[in-house]
Amino acid sequence: MNADFINPFLNATVNVLSMMAFVKPTPGKPFIKKDKKAHGDISGIIGMTGSSKGVVVISLSKEAAIKIVSSMLGEEYTELNEGVSDAIGEITNMISGDARRELAAKGYVFEAGLPSIIIGPGHEIESITKGPTVAIPFELDDTTFVVETAFD
Amino acid sequence: MNADFINPFLNATVNVLSMMAFVKPTPGKPFIKKDKKAHGDISGIIGMTGSSKGVVVISLSKEAAIKIVSSMLGEEYTELNEGVSDAIGEITNMISGDARRELAAKGYVFEAGLPSIIIGPGHEIESITKGPTVAIPFELDDTTFVVETAFD
Repeated sequence: MNADFINPFLNATVNVLSMMAFVKPTPGKPFIKKDKKAHGDISGIIGMTGSSKGVVVISLSKEAAIKIVSSMLGEEYTELNEGVSDAIGEITNMISGDARRELAAKGYVFEAGLPSIIIGPGHEIESITKGPTVAIPFELDDTTFVVETAFD
Repeated sequence: MNADFINPFLNATVNVLSMMAFVKPTPGKPFIKKDKKAHGDISGIIGMTGSSKGVVVISLSKEAAIKIVSSMLGEEYTELNEGVSDAIGEITNMISGDARRELAAKGYVFEAGLPSIIIGPGHEIESITKGPTVAIPFELDDTTFVVETAFD
């Protein structure tokens, strides 16, 4: 996997959550995953094609998702309902779009499929790739989430 | 959503499972989903771009996945472990590939991203689309699974 492919997703996550949800997550150090699994209560996932085949996953604890969406929509959410999953779908789309703009500026052109949202306590996501899966951990107050990218 | 987009996925699912896993699932009548959620214990998901933006999901009960993969690999599986998730990833990729060949013959050209596998008892998947989500239910002996497609 091209190292050029990591920072655009880190930057896009911070940009989109700051602009859309008025929260400022702190990115940790990106690392290559060995077990290739993300664990979350709610995840957004979107496939990419173009300069390479890829997939981006944002996987959040229930607490992180509720904090982000409550701030984004200015309304107190307590459950992972349809309002939350729609908002996480929109965030997934926008992170993919913002990252693709930065990638395009570096000469890597990608298109994206439709985002899907997965809800289920502690589900695992494994991206099937010949290349490595890179995870970028984020902290937001006392909650955590992870953005993972995999490219062939 | 174009009705031309449904049959290729129905045919591809039967073709791939017959050829690769030596099982013959019975397709039910495709229907438009209102709640847009698939429920499964293990799901494969792959994004598509090209003539339209889309996503394909195959969502299986634990029993259906184990039956298919045990037959495919000639080995008795009892748990949703890495062998099962890798095999479901391969099946997801091949269903997407086989459907894209039939779509291309009709003049619709698509590329696919990387497949991801989700594991978690009874997780829900919602595809975020402006168009409808079409579900194709399948029976395989006493187990069930569903293939869903959503396109913008």
